[in-house]
Amino acid sequence: MPSFQFPVSNFNFTPVGVIHSCFTEKFGIPRQPGLVSEARARLELIAPYNQSEAIKGLEAYSHIWVVFVFHGNLNGRWKTTVRPPRLGGNRRVGVFASRAPFRPNPIGLSVVAMTGINDNADGIWLEIAGGDFLDQTPVLDIKPYLPGIDRLSDARAGLMPERDATALKVVFSEQARSDLAGLPPAEQTHLEKLIVQMLQLDPRPGYFDTKPNKNRFGFQIYDWDVKWEFIDGVMHVKTIRAIENSD
Amino acid sequence: MPSFQFPVSNFNFTPVGVIHSCFTEKFGIPRQPGLVSEARARLELIAPYNQSEAIKGLEAYSHIWVVFVFHGNLNGRWKTTVRPPRLGGNRRVGVFASRAPFRPNPIGLSVVAMTGINDNADGIWLEIAGGDFLDQTPVLDIKPYLPGIDRLSDARAGLMPERDATALKVVFSEQARSDLAGLPPAEQTHLEKLIVQMLQLDPRPGYFDTKPNKNRFGFQIYDWDVKWEFIDGVMHVKTIRAIENSD
Repeated sequence: MPSFQFPVSNFNFTPVGVIHSCFTEKFGIPRQPGLVSEARARLELIAPYNQSEAIKGLEAYSHIWVVFVFHGNLNGRWKTTVRPPRLGGNRRVGVFASRAPFRPNPIGLSVVAMTGINDNADGIWLEIAGGDFLDQTPVLDIKPYLPGIDRLSDARAGLMPERDATALKVVFSEQARSDLAGLPPAEQTHLEKLIVQMLQLDPRPGYFDTKPNKNRFGFQIYDWDVKWEFIDGVMHVKTIRAIENSD
Repeated sequence: MPSFQFPVSNFNFTPVGVIHSCFTEKFGIPRQPGLVSEARARLELIAPYNQSEAIKGLEAYSHIWVVFVFHGNLNGRWKTTVRPPRLGGNRRVGVFASRAPFRPNPIGLSVVAMTGINDNADGIWLEIAGGDFLDQTPVLDIKPYLPGIDRLSDARAGLMPERDATALKVVFSEQARSDLAGLPPAEQTHLEKLIVQMLQLDPRPGYFDTKPNKNRFGFQIYDWDVKWEFIDGVMHVKTIRAIENSD
């Protein structure tokens, strides 16, 4: 059988927008959208796509599809199989049977709630919630979520649990509480909720990681470095420290 | 405000598969997936992605997302607004508030039912139903449909009707019936159902087209040229002729 040849075999895309997200590093980012409602982000349109007309009518929709580039993985290599964390991290499935970021074409697809639209001299952006985007993610396309088409009542997902069953308990140390104490109340509440929502999903690496006994971790959100520890099934937030900005 | 600069501003993608579809020309293709269940297609993986392992576990899913290129529009120019046919063709919305094919990046996104998987010496392909793909569509990615993530119960789509309300009546002329008569029964039934499903969705161009009085149309499916006429609200299939293949 002759192999298929396209008249065009390379497609060149350029970003139409960029995401400004609370997730400033990959570790700890929810593995799917919609899991961490407190995760806030802005999808900013960039020139020449930052035109009011291009989003006219979008305000009628509650959710959007964001087609983006897994830019944290551009130098990574895809493999034919992956081990999805939601399957326990020890079961291999094909890359096309997963939503893993390391893919032949590193294109991501996430549906997110749109909580507002900004359109003024400061720029045009969509306020989004529940995203799973790394900060600075390049956006290739935005499409409205169409319930009549995209909400499939009869869809079946054999292996994958619909939602992770258990939410871990999260507690804050005295130190972590005092680290937050100096912040304005709204920011304090937001940061606390965000950390709880992230940790209760268990962002630890797959169970068969090279360091199975490791239980101290840290991640960055916004300009904060959050240190936490997993002890006897409970997530303990130890410290929340501002990151010194070097630039 | 400084404009945003990506470290990488161009992303190059290469097809992982190709779609072999009954829709051999753009006109008449359903405007969304899932509307014409009789539409059959094959999504064939192409080298070096045609590996059994890459789709391992996909059989557990009933539906997949296909990320593809609108290759029929590569030379077209995108505009900031479009007139979606489902809104009557006379209302302008922003390109990002639509699923129109002419987009800044011509990336399509369709969810389709998977009816079978072929994996043998002839190749690796997914049998899909309900697609809205032009034949020879380049596929950039395949992802499983995850009901727990993708099926949003609370999503709202202000302007867009969930489904087109009315299905037009479709009748076959004596000539059209006799054109089909020579075919094997299964093929005859399939072709007839496919034509009915396509026509009852009213594939006529927008009502404010340049030729509002035009009511005779034709489209190609597989190697068939189907002529039809819209008379007093009814779709009349006039002839179904085999296309002479010139190559």
